[in-house]
Amino acid sequence: MLPESLDAYVAAAREIGNPSSLHAAGRHARRLVEESRERIAAVLGARPSEVIFTSGGTESDNLATKGVFFARRDADARRDRVVASAVEHHAVLDSVDWLAAHESAVADWLPVDAACRVDPAALAALIDEHGDELTVISVQWANNEVGTVQPIAELAALAARAGIPFHTDAVQAVGQVPVDFAASGASALTVTGHKLGGPVGVGALLLGREVGATPLLHGGGQERDVRSGTLDTPGVVAFAVAVEAAVKTQPEYSARVSALRDDLVARVRAAIPDAIYNGDPVHRLPGNAHFSFPGCEGDALLLLLDAQGIACSTGSACSAGVAQPSHVLVAMGADADRARSSLRFTLGHTSTAAEIDALMAALPGAVERARRATAWKTPRG
Amino acid sequence: MLPESLDAYVAAAREIGNPSSLHAAGRHARRLVEESRERIAAVLGARPSEVIFTSGGTESDNLATKGVFFARRDADARRDRVVASAVEHHAVLDSVDWLAAHESAVADWLPVDAACRVDPAALAALIDEHGDELTVISVQWANNEVGTVQPIAELAALAARAGIPFHTDAVQAVGQVPVDFAASGASALTVTGHKLGGPVGVGALLLGREVGATPLLHGGGQERDVRSGTLDTPGVVAFAVAVEAAVKTQPEYSARVSALRDDLVARVRAAIPDAIYNGDPVHRLPGNAHFSFPGCEGDALLLLLDAQGIACSTGSACSAGVAQPSHVLVAMGADADRARSSLRFTLGHTSTAAEIDALMAALPGAVERARRATAWKTPRG
Repeated sequence: MLPESLDAYVAAAREIGNPSSLHAAGRHARRLVEESRERIAAVLGARPSEVIFTSGGTESDNLATKGVFFARRDADARRDRVVASAVEHHAVLDSVDWLAAHESAVADWLPVDAACRVDPAALAALIDEHGDELTVISVQWANNEVGTVQPIAELAALAARAGIPFHTDAVQAVGQVPVDFAASGASALTVTGHKLGGPVGVGALLLGREVGATPLLHGGGQERDVRSGTLDTPGVVAFAVAVEAAVKTQPEYSARVSALRDDLVARVRAAIPDAIYNGDPVHRLPGNAHFSFPGCEGDALLLLLDAQGIACSTGSACSAGVAQPSHVLVAMGADADRARSSLRFTLGHTSTAAEIDALMAALPGAVERARRATAWKTPRG
Repeated sequence: MLPESLDAYVAAAREIGNPSSLHAAGRHARRLVEESRERIAAVLGARPSEVIFTSGGTESDNLATKGVFFARRDADARRDRVVASAVEHHAVLDSVDWLAAHESAVADWLPVDAACRVDPAALAALIDEHGDELTVISVQWANNEVGTVQPIAELAALAARAGIPFHTDAVQAVGQVPVDFAASGASALTVTGHKLGGPVGVGALLLGREVGATPLLHGGGQERDVRSGTLDTPGVVAFAVAVEAAVKTQPEYSARVSALRDDLVARVRAAIPDAIYNGDPVHRLPGNAHFSFPGCEGDALLLLLDAQGIACSTGSACSAGVAQPSHVLVAMGADADRARSSLRFTLGHTSTAAEIDALMAALPGAVERARRATAWKTPRG
């Protein structure tokens, strides 16, 4: 958590906590929340009334998919389809699966190419064929595993032309690439605090005034009656500080970190010539470098690097100890072996050239070692 | 927010925020969360695996009603009824209304008597008639307006005998009266942080291992796959500190505050003989004193007292500037006039005898003034 965000949290928690002036404190809290709403709206290209505070990215994604689905199907029963890319975060993926399993929705999955990009022509074709039946379209701004940035403005324009709400999960994007809600043409956008140095458990759904959404959390009727629950004033204030800081530093951050990342990528390719650089080389988050190392298990590589103080991620969901190949890499056409041989290096605000040097000192040996371990475990054909 | 809860938040946010040791930090965060889960379970009479962290009371109530309804109806389509008392918080009330309007559920509302108590015989009769069709029964531990404490153990025993999940919203009760999940016999219990000196935006649903619930928030599969979303480690740690403090100080707190409250009640009755003391005089939250002042508008009285630095609450929902009579008082048999003439005084940790003196110095004059204003506005019949 950014020190200035944490400081804002503490200051608000202390002020609001004054139990001897409940009513004045209540009015003060409301003012802090509305100022935070305005600050977030201003830097993300939204109107203050479009900012719906939630408990984070997962809730925002659920509300944008299930909530908009319910509202649109309730208004017209012929609308029973929901569209999402095949590489969405589980919060969207599992919401759509639930709508299909539980609400008899038809799920339309947009495919991606080998670089993880959605083809706007595929969405155009779907809208041509089923436009009247679509409730909501959800395509992430950027992928959390391979870093590919999607052609959001193009996709949103197609949806807008057909009058279909378009949601984008921008959890990975805000602070990394320029994100402007109005300019994007999207009608709903997910953002969350803890990915940009703010508190966990606080996020927002930017939601166009004209987009109806059935609440997932009923109650007191806060947040345009779309999302009930006592507003977390200190959390909201800290969130606004973090969003503002992330958006303001984005251009400089992006230039610095993508240069470091490009250096890392060039050096990995030179040292390990058969490494596959996954994701889109151009339309990409600045801090993301994602590779497959043929013949390696990503988990083994991760352990070997971790032992040398280098943190990375296989980016695969691991439940009950059984590693599933990443649905993202599978959607990109990778086979299970390549998916399992993958590793993500994430660079950020504190990354340095010295860390790249340290990684490059450790990586070739670790890949060699992981290859021997994998070969030993693999039955010969 | 209690200073020790805020300190715990800050310490956790600083530790977890260290971006240079992501993996060690991840394991440390997990340990902090699990320790917090154990601490909360220990003081509330639950098993650690029964603690599902949520974004607060509203989400817990929604999950306990809608989530359990979905799971039970999916398992047996004949089950389509949901039971709640008529005096629930809006998070339960509006969830049940939504199930009726949107999911074709049948809502069974348990009536309350003039003291706001649910009669276990009414629940027994309902179970006799419709037991096989019931999905979930929800009765609050204590009412947030008039302070009445419900016969939870009796109600839960009836539900348990029939094999029907019983949920209780204990948001108002924890820290005020003894609350023990296992001893209560309930299968689900809502608790939230900010009502007991912890952070806003963090709460829990205590949920028996055997009770199925369909997630309202789908995604990463955290919290027994019942509630997805990145866990708010600093929030959870601060919440545990607050729950522990509230439960530990409860006996002493209750004795001290209920004595103050009883003094307040006696003095109000002496000074304003026609004041009606609402709620159950015995089964009652220690810090709650709720009155109707015939011939007064509660809102006018609130303003007059507020101007003298005395904070109280009408306890009625007020939307779009139109004061609705409280659904709680209406359910207790009060007419709209009496409901609108009501005022709640809430005592807490910092309340003092001097504050009672100050209130009693101001109240009779304010009542007199509010009566004149109300009489002037009321057309003569």
